[in-house]
Amino acid sequence: MLSHSRTPVTVVGLGAMGRALAAAFLDAGHPTTVWNRTAARAAPLVARGARHAGAVEDAVRASPLIVTCLTSYEATTEVLRLGAGALRGRTLITLNSGSPSGARAMAAWAGEHGARFLDGAVKNVPSAVGAHDTQLYYSGDRSVFAEYEDTLKVLGGDTSHLGDEPDLAALYESAVGATLLPALVGFFQGAAAVQSRGLPAATLVPYAVKWLEMIASVLPVFAREIDSGDYSEPLSSVRLFLETARWDEEFGRETGVDVSWNAPLHDLVRRAAEAGHVDDSISALVEVLRKPAVPSRS
Amino acid sequence: MLSHSRTPVTVVGLGAMGRALAAAFLDAGHPTTVWNRTAARAAPLVARGARHAGAVEDAVRASPLIVTCLTSYEATTEVLRLGAGALRGRTLITLNSGSPSGARAMAAWAGEHGARFLDGAVKNVPSAVGAHDTQLYYSGDRSVFAEYEDTLKVLGGDTSHLGDEPDLAALYESAVGATLLPALVGFFQGAAAVQSRGLPAATLVPYAVKWLEMIASVLPVFAREIDSGDYSEPLSSVRLFLETARWDEEFGRETGVDVSWNAPLHDLVRRAAEAGHVDDSISALVEVLRKPAVPSRS
Ligand SMILES: NC(=O)c1ccc[n+]([C@@H]2O[C@H](COP(=O)([O-])OP(=O)(O)OC[C@H]3O[C@@H](n4cnc5c(N)ncnc54)[C@H](OP(=O)(O)O)[C@@H]3O)[C@@H](O)[C@H]2O)c1
Ligand SMILES: NC(=O)c1ccc[n+]([C@@H]2O[C@H](COP(=O)([O-])OP(=O)(O)OC[C@H]3O[C@@H](n4cnc5c(N)ncnc54)[C@H](OP(=O)(O)O)[C@@H]3O)[C@@H](O)[C@H]2O)c1
Repeated sequence: MLSHSRTPVTVVGLGAMGRALAAAFLDAGHPTTVWNRTAARAAPLVARGARHAGAVEDAVRASPLIVTCLTSYEATTEVLRLGAGALRGRTLITLNSGSPSGARAMAAWAGEHGARFLDGAVKNVPSAVGAHDTQLYYSGDRSVFAEYEDTLKVLGGDTSHLGDEPDLAALYESAVGATLLPALVGFFQGAAAVQSRGLPAATLVPYAVKWLEMIASVLPVFAREIDSGDYSEPLSSVRLFLETARWDEEFGRETGVDVSWNAPLHDLVRRAAEAGHVDDSISALVEVLRKPAVPSRS
Repeated sequence: MLSHSRTPVTVVGLGAMGRALAAAFLDAGHPTTVWNRTAARAAPLVARGARHAGAVEDAVRASPLIVTCLTSYEATTEVLRLGAGALRGRTLITLNSGSPSGARAMAAWAGEHGARFLDGAVKNVPSAVGAHDTQLYYSGDRSVFAEYEDTLKVLGGDTSHLGDEPDLAALYESAVGATLLPALVGFFQGAAAVQSRGLPAATLVPYAVKWLEMIASVLPVFAREIDSGDYSEPLSSVRLFLETARWDEEFGRETGVDVSWNAPLHDLVRRAAEAGHVDDSISALVEVLRKPAVPSRS
């Protein structure tokens, strides 16, 4: 009985993330229909009570709310094209990663097919889906978010709406996500280095966790500097990072780790120093990262 | 009276970090002697009760414990050479950043001059020095650490000893620190991107902080994969990161931000894919970062 009061949901795309989304909807008692290109991936979800649609169009017709989680916006339109006729009057929410322009194109496509639309981002790994502190954010028509907010909270308790412009979620996801690969590669470099001394990578974890906490704690200060453009009272100066560049290579040699991916970072630091920021805060790097506006032809 | 029961300490190097260290010792009631190349920097500390030594040798003679915080090990030996005759029987603790080989050379130098020695790392910004959760770690002769542990806790409550080998602190500092510049540049890139839409960088902070927490939460999993060499059950696969590489450039174009520093990271991802890790965990990148052992001539 309970399940009949929950909004029926269709999940299209059963990769690692899509499966986690569908499982969370099932766990919360939502009638859940699933579709995936490789149909076999649906089986474990069907065993847990999901309905498997053989055709995309059937999947779309099954629910007022369609959540997609494919690799890209392109893959999403490619798949949904097959069920586009059924989209009118339904709500489409895309949860893949992608660029803001991709999100705008997706929103326009959904509009052309008469679907209401939100784009969202899952800011965590699949195993965290459904937890009270897992973060997801959405952008697009606020009334759609208001209507489905309770349903969306099933995917993560830290769910919010960034604004009506449909590309804001992709903008913030890309902006926030820019630290992921670099931070991970930094950790992997450290892991390889301690291993080169016969020590397990696991011994690095408590220190690395604390270090990320430290980095998080200084972001408000850096954001303030960046918003004000005043870099003159540095917590950590460009000069300090110039110095570390010097022993990076030595560290790589000694530990047998390829540290060459750091070279363009050191270049940015050098360019900031050359631009007169040597005794400014390291956040002055933002000035070097901003590309000069392309002059318009006249 | 109280102050006379505390170990007298000398702080050599009054940059941003050295000043914070000296201030913490003063606050805790340690008789504190300071020296700096640019003598003027000592004035605010003298106003708070520090003794200013005009010559390095006097600074060394003033205390059984000498803490240095200069830019590098080279700068440290350059300065201490002037007071080397007074080092015998005293304890020297270096708190600059540097490579493990630099730490070993420093330890050897201290030994030659009859000083007991620890190398340490301050894993936080100067303003955090003295706080109960500020992390510092040390390596070198354990009995020296045991003798001065209480004094060192004045600098940060989360103080520990990594082992007797004097270069372990530098090894872990470099290993842990490898995430700092890349993570910060990622954040600065994101800040520039949201600013390009007229939004303040400060709006990014809560999401970025949560994101770093997420990254921290998955490090134990990655460390386990790296220690076992089993990358076959990915939280996030190499394939997923191959995909994000594709829209990175588009994001840069759209927001007017120079994202080119990411190129070698995407290269590592591609090389991991080519090495057969495409459906493995992203932690398999560690295999690409490890340089093949240089074959010995025979
Ligand atoms: N995994 C994470 O940690 C994580 C975290 C946050 C966000 N995300 C985002 O979530 C999205 C999906 O990630 P994932 O981890 O689930 O990826 P995945 O495991 O690689 O799954 C990709 C999914 O997309 C489908 N697909 C791709 N191209 C297709 C096409 N042309 N036609 C039909 N189906 C297609 C795949 O179908 P088949 O099964 O038939 O191949 C599969 O269902 C990505 O945008 C990712 O950035 C993932
Ligand atoms: N600031 C941070 O956030 C932070 C965090 C963790 C670790 N650390 C580490 O702490 C160390 C010091 O950093 P800091 O922020 O205090 O740097 P800083 O503000 O640039 O100060 C550098 C200090 O070194 C002295 N110095 C440099 N070369 C010298 C030489 N050849 N002879 C004599 N004195 C010399 C400077 O003397 P003058 O005053 O005469 O120039 C100054 O006292 C570095 O290894 C850094 O990596 C810093």
